[in-house]
Amino acid sequence: MYIVSDEIQKSEEIEIHEDVKEIIFSSPYKEEIIAWLLKHGFHESFIEDIQNEEQSIVYEESESFKLLVFKYFKRSSEHPLYFIDTNIIMIITEKKLFFLCEEKDVIQRIVARFRRRYKKGDSIPYVTYTLIDILIDATMGMVDLVDDKLEIIEDTIFAEEFDEEETQKSLYFARRSLNRISKVSVQENDVINKLYNHYPSTVRKKLKFEFIDLKEHLSFLINESKAYLERTGYLQNLIMGYMSNRMNQTMQRLTGITLIFLPLSFIVGNYGMNFKYMPELEWKYGYFAVWILNIIIALGLYLWLRKKRWI
Amino acid sequence: MYIVSDEIQKSEEIEIHEDVKEIIFSSPYKEEIIAWLLKHGFHESFIEDIQNEEQSIVYEESESFKLLVFKYFKRSSEHPLYFIDTNIIMIITEKKLFFLCEEKDVIQRIVARFRRRYKKGDSIPYVTYTLIDILIDATMGMVDLVDDKLEIIEDTIFAEEFDEEETQKSLYFARRSLNRISKVSVQENDVINKLYNHYPSTVRKKLKFEFIDLKEHLSFLINESKAYLERTGYLQNLIMGYMSNRMNQTMQRLTGITLIFLPLSFIVGNYGMNFKYMPELEWKYGYFAVWILNIIIALGLYLWLRKKRWI
Amino acid sequence: MYIVSDEIQKSEEIEIHEDVKEIIFSSPYKEEIIAWLLKHGFHESFIEDIQNEEQSIVYEESESFKLLVFKYFKRSSEHPLYFIDTNIIMIITEKKLFFLCEEKDVIQRIVARFRRRYKKGDSIPYVTYTLIDILIDATMGMVDLVDDKLEIIEDTIFAEEFDEEETQKSLYFARRSLNRISKVSVQENDVINKLYNHYPSTVRKKLKFEFIDLKEHLSFLINESKAYLERTGYLQNLIMGYMSNRMNQTMQRLTGITLIFLPLSFIVGNYGMNFKYMPELEWKYGYFAVWILNIIIALGLYLWLRKKRWI
Amino acid sequence: MYIVSDEIQKSEEIEIHEDVKEIIFSSPYKEEIIAWLLKHGFHESFIEDIQNEEQSIVYEESESFKLLVFKYFKRSSEHPLYFIDTNIIMIITEKKLFFLCEEKDVIQRIVARFRRRYKKGDSIPYVTYTLIDILIDATMGMVDLVDDKLEIIEDTIFAEEFDEEETQKSLYFARRSLNRISKVSVQENDVINKLYNHYPSTVRKKLKFEFIDLKEHLSFLINESKAYLERTGYLQNLIMGYMSNRMNQTMQRLTGITLIFLPLSFIVGNYGMNFKYMPELEWKYGYFAVWILNIIIALGLYLWLRKKRWI
Amino acid sequence: MYIVSDEIQKSEEIEIHEDVKEIIFSSPYKEEIIAWLLKHGFHESFIEDIQNEEQSIVYEESESFKLLVFKYFKRSSEHPLYFIDTNIIMIITEKKLFFLCEEKDVIQRIVARFRRRYKKGDSIPYVTYTLIDILIDATMGMVDLVDDKLEIIEDTIFAEEFDEEETQKSLYFARRSLNRISKVSVQENDVINKLYNHYPSTVRKKLKFEFIDLKEHLSFLINESKAYLERTGYLQNLIMGYMSNRMNQTMQRLTGITLIFLPLSFIVGNYGMNFKYMPELEWKYGYFAVWILNIIIALGLYLWLRKKRWI
Ligand SMILES: [Mg+2]
Ligand SMILES: [Mg+2]
Ligand SMILES: [Mg+2]
Ligand SMILES: [Mg+2]
Ligand SMILES: [Mg+2]
Ligand SMILES: [Mg+2]
Ligand SMILES: [Mg+2]
Ligand SMILES: [Mg+2]
Ligand SMILES: [Mg+2]
Ligand SMILES: [Mg+2]
Ligand SMILES: [Mg+2]
Ligand SMILES: [Mg+2]
Ligand SMILES: [Mg+2]
Ligand SMILES: [Mg+2]
Ligand SMILES: [Mg+2]
Ligand SMILES: [Mg+2]
Ligand SMILES: [Mg+2]
Ligand SMILES: [Mg+2]
Ligand SMILES: [Mg+2]
Ligand SMILES: [Mg+2]
Ligand SMILES: [Mg+2]
Ligand SMILES: [Mg+2]
Ligand SMILES: [Mg+2]
Ligand SMILES: [Mg+2]
Ligand SMILES: [Mg+2]
Ligand SMILES: [Mg+2]
Ligand SMILES: [Mg+2]
Ligand SMILES: [Mg+2]
Ligand SMILES: [Mg+2]
Ligand SMILES: [Mg+2]
Ligand SMILES: [Mg+2]
Repeated sequence: MYIVSDEIQKSEEIEIHEDVKEIIFSSPYKEEIIAWLLKHGFHESFIEDIQNEEQSIVYEESESFKLLVFKYFKRSSEHPLYFIDTNIIMIITEKKLFFLCEEKDVIQRIVARFRRRYKKGDSIPYVTYTLIDILIDATMGMVDLVDDKLEIIEDTIFAEEFDEEETQKSLYFARRSLNRISKVSVQENDVINKLYNHYPSTVRKKLKFEFIDLKEHLSFLINESKAYLERTGYLQNLIMGYMSNRMNQTMQRLTGITLIFLPLSFIVGNYGMNFKYMPELEWKYGYFAVWILNIIIALGLYLWLRKKRWI
Repeated sequence: MYIVSDEIQKSEEIEIHEDVKEIIFSSPYKEEIIAWLLKHGFHESFIEDIQNEEQSIVYEESESFKLLVFKYFKRSSEHPLYFIDTNIIMIITEKKLFFLCEEKDVIQRIVARFRRRYKKGDSIPYVTYTLIDILIDATMGMVDLVDDKLEIIEDTIFAEEFDEEETQKSLYFARRSLNRISKVSVQENDVINKLYNHYPSTVRKKLKFEFIDLKEHLSFLINESKAYLERTGYLQNLIMGYMSNRMNQTMQRLTGITLIFLPLSFIVGNYGMNFKYMPELEWKYGYFAVWILNIIIALGLYLWLRKKRWI
Repeated sequence: MYIVSDEIQKSEEIEIHEDVKEIIFSSPYKEEIIAWLLKHGFHESFIEDIQNEEQSIVYEESESFKLLVFKYFKRSSEHPLYFIDTNIIMIITEKKLFFLCEEKDVIQRIVARFRRRYKKGDSIPYVTYTLIDILIDATMGMVDLVDDKLEIIEDTIFAEEFDEEETQKSLYFARRSLNRISKVSVQENDVINKLYNHYPSTVRKKLKFEFIDLKEHLSFLINESKAYLERTGYLQNLIMGYMSNRMNQTMQRLTGITLIFLPLSFIVGNYGMNFKYMPELEWKYGYFAVWILNIIIALGLYLWLRKKRWI
Repeated sequence: MYIVSDEIQKSEEIEIHEDVKEIIFSSPYKEEIIAWLLKHGFHESFIEDIQNEEQSIVYEESESFKLLVFKYFKRSSEHPLYFIDTNIIMIITEKKLFFLCEEKDVIQRIVARFRRRYKKGDSIPYVTYTLIDILIDATMGMVDLVDDKLEIIEDTIFAEEFDEEETQKSLYFARRSLNRISKVSVQENDVINKLYNHYPSTVRKKLKFEFIDLKEHLSFLINESKAYLERTGYLQNLIMGYMSNRMNQTMQRLTGITLIFLPLSFIVGNYGMNFKYMPELEWKYGYFAVWILNIIIALGLYLWLRKKRWI
Repeated sequence: MYIVSDEIQKSEEIEIHEDVKEIIFSSPYKEEIIAWLLKHGFHESFIEDIQNEEQSIVYEESESFKLLVFKYFKRSSEHPLYFIDTNIIMIITEKKLFFLCEEKDVIQRIVARFRRRYKKGDSIPYVTYTLIDILIDATMGMVDLVDDKLEIIEDTIFAEEFDEEETQKSLYFARRSLNRISKVSVQENDVINKLYNHYPSTVRKKLKFEFIDLKEHLSFLINESKAYLERTGYLQNLIMGYMSNRMNQTMQRLTGITLIFLPLSFIVGNYGMNFKYMPELEWKYGYFAVWILNIIIALGLYLWLRKKRWI
């Protein structure tokens, strides 16, 4: 889709020039690229891998190729905290870097960022570093987003304004995503180590601090995603506690209200009996007395329940 | 059951030819095979192992034999997410590969897939690779099936259309199966490493990428099965939360409805008393007034409960 | 209790012959044995250990002695899934093997099995292997028993015929026992490794496959007991879910039944009031109409609750 | 407080003699000891450590000193299962062993046990072993006590005679204590390893079996405290299950009793209505019939509920 | 902000002198410092790191610089148990130590403590030790505070005077903070190891006991924060148990009170019926008898419920 050599060009047709430094952004299904790769001795089983949607993160090396598979996280339409990942394939030869991804919008976003950082003379290893850095930064943005959302959830819980089901759902997707990110980051760290160690010592020296920085960011990602994962667990506990507490209070209120009406109903039932000889019924102020009695009982119970904090 | 040398033949009687490359699919209880193995120095204790239904996954080697025990997962009739495993025994000599399994239908399914991939000249190590690949692919299909089912469960939960007991049951069997698959995969990874390292270096060179691929798929299996296992835990939490939430609402509704009827019952009870002097009873519109009062109380309570979201 | 040299003899008095291969089954408190051990340089601290009921599983070696402590699991009388362990002490010299256990019935059971496997010429290392194998097989039987019981529990849960408290109790003891078995097996694996590595190479060569088999069985034990332990956790979750579900339904039913009777009670209460002017009371078919009304309300509510699946 | 050289002497004033083997039991704040230590080159930072109440368990070594910090567990007055630990400091030079502890009663208890085991000629390393053994035995006593208490808790649970809050409290303190003991034991194991490895080989040879025994006891402590910790978790689950079960039954009983009285109340309410035309009221045996009806309904419901095990 | 060379001086303008030992306390955004660093070959990527609010804890080294990033914990205004951390950056050259922190009040607090410990001749490595010690002591104070608060929570729980939501909130923030502290301490331990190992052997010898002490304190921090983290979990269990217990009792009381009133209401309802022939109504002491009956029933039920501990 995009070819970068002297400058970044967009074109649907791809023509690969030998012996020229080129960075090619495209899809793993692009026939011209597959053809070029096979022609230059790229192993068949690698072709399968780069077109496999569920390919794991790997670093593979044959004589003239380096193959890296990374993951790029996108927000899913299902839930704002559910991130799905797509494969990012980087195939590196001495003069070429193929950056392949099935999804056009992912390519566009990455090229947009790359455009800001790319300088003409950048070597292939330096460009590799730049692209990995862009990928990791994107994932860090995702973790940041989860962090912000967890803060909001926390605040709504303490303000007792949370909707249980919505919050449970958010925590569920936060967990799924963080779990995935933490695992992916561990594997990517491994890939970056391998990549760095397979560079010749001159490249290693030049890019030392860049790779230290990459690994630092990945270790930040691993630590944070695990910490947030634990935090979701703590929040779950909190919600469970709050919900159980609410229910507790509902039950106590029910008990309280029942308590108030039970004696009242008994009393009016009592004077609804049809016995011939019921002296109270003859009293002049009997009915009035029952009202007074009822009010006293209701008020007394109400105050007692208040004091016991049952109501 | 099946003998593969030049082509795949099915026959109940097995006749093993010396010095010819043969791949023999059969049962570990087939007498001809046991006899042949013992004749060629296969250790007695190995015979016991291959006929032991609960034999663990192992790689064992004596002078002329390699013994591999793998597991094949089948859906049980008890529940679509409950997978049971049978032993797959592979005994490898220079010219022979015995592929033994107690269950005929498993053999048939594997032979069916093998038929599509086998080419006449394939060496014994390459055939070994092919068969292991078929086994791992089958397990990957099982994990995929669990993934799909978990997605459906997730969706029914969010749509609040889930049957608690059915979902609990599904999660339980998903956990059992994933737990088993993840453990089996770790052990099979170990076996494959041992197998690869015991090959002579020429074979190792030829099959390098094939074995890298096998190990990649196993590591995918291990990672995915663990991730899904964790996901079942998250889903459990979700269900628990939702169920507790539902119960909460039921309780609140009960409280609400009780609240509405308690004062009404008290009022009609009150005017059912038989006191001689009860002025309201003499009023012309007393009865009418009680109805109005009751309607006001019921409506007022109803609206108040609505606002409090208790009903 | 039992002395095995040429054949198995039972006798309460023990006389130990020098320079003869003897396998002696007895109690760690038998004075003749203690005397013999001390006379032959068995360290005092070892005497303490073999008489210590809570001695851990160990492998200890001094110049002429090997000391092994294993555990034998027996079903306790408290619960069929609660296994208690007793110490099995094996003291090995060049010509003697002391197999000591406090409990006579354990000795008897093991001698009974040993009798079937012992052949006259068996060397002391081979006898050691045989006895360890018998011990491990016994533990495997225990794990199998737990497995069978868990299957039954699972089935009664799904058939919704389980008694909560009984099931909880069973799971509790299954967990205690499996936890213990898994830990003991890990330690015994360690002991067997040490024992094997301290044999001279000729013995190691002869017993290679026997010890591989022992370790295989122990690793099976470790894996299975851990897997079943996890399964008990899943079953706990299941039970909790089912119980919470049942309670849920009970609550809903209560709500439903209350809902049906509340309006009925209100209506009959209403016409029990003693107002002078209550036109309905004068109607000829008033009472009949109330019955009709009540039936309609009750039926309507019942059908509505059915549809909502609250009843 | 106590000085042991030829025999154990108690005295408030401490006078330390050069070049004589002395074991001194005292407080880490005793000025004479601090002065002696500083005079003989004990590092300032060590002085701080031995007076720090929250000092961790360590083994430190300078030219002429070995410094060991251990923990001694005492039952707290707050709860019989809550153990608090005090520091035990051992400072070892060629001729002296300082055994320091802030709490007099701890010193007394240890000296009492030491008195029974000490023999005049015992070397400083042997005395060190003896004292460590006494400390570990004391901790083992504590774990035993927890074990006994857990057995009792278990039995009261199964006998359904447990007080929820008391049991929860006991389990809480058992967990706190076991958690602490298990961690302390791991660290003490480390200290003992270091101590043994820093002895000259002659001492190592002499005390080999004594130190093996110490480490065995510590590994017993570690294993048991972890196992009991897991058991407390299982017991928690059990209690939760039982409590939830009890509540379940209470709810069902409530439902049942409500069910019985609801129709009865409706019936008597029905015949309390004041309709002019209510034929049943005129029947001679109407009232009697209502009683019969009520008894039939109540009994029928009661039997039905019994059968459903709701009551 | 502060410059320490011969004595501690406060000044807003910073002038850095070459070849003089200076300890400079300031902000990572101070332009004079950034300029000086860049002039002396401090790597660009390090500048980014020291200004990055989410920079992880690291030890980085280039030719003439050591870069250390630590974390300082402050109580947040949101909750007394919620600690937030700020970056502490230490940049060390042969003659300079830059101690940078964004927040002025943190700098002030640390300088205040530093003032008490600093002596003129202190070398740069010794000053480094002093500052790290101050940081770790501050964190230890935080953990102590959590410990004290957990003790209070524990006591209020056992006194049954706890407010559920407040306690849940406190435990939540204690967990968040302890989790963070434990992770930070592990990473800081790593940094201190690297720092110590990169010193020349003369410095290592001089500061041996100081660094042992630092690592001891960090290992104390790691152990304690983990232990308290586990304790929060135990307390959660306790609260859950107590809350569930309370609810249980509320339910039982409800059941009890309902039980008492149900028969009374039935009885008075019964004698409110309007049957023509109801012999009891004609009795002289009928009404009186009903009262007696009711009192007997109520009292009997009350005593029975008391005995069953349902009320
Ligand atoms: Mg592949
Ligand atoms: Mg970056
Ligand atoms: Mg953030
Ligand atoms: Mg934040
Ligand atoms: Mg907040
Ligand atoms: Mg950096
Ligand atoms: Mg076997
Ligand atoms: Mg495959
Ligand atoms: Mg899938
Ligand atoms: Mg999916
Ligand atoms: Mg979905
Ligand atoms: Mg059902
Ligand atoms: Mg591959
Ligand atoms: Mg011992
Ligand atoms: Mg066996
Ligand atoms: Mg079985
Ligand atoms: Mg089974
Ligand atoms: Mg079953
Ligand atoms: Mg075997
Ligand atoms: Mg210290
Ligand atoms: Mg001891
Ligand atoms: Mg005990
Ligand atoms: Mg016991
Ligand atoms: Mg018991
Ligand atoms: Mg011992
Ligand atoms: Mg950075
Ligand atoms: Mg300090
Ligand atoms: Mg403290
Ligand atoms: Mg404390
Ligand atoms: Mg306390
Ligand atoms: Mg120290």
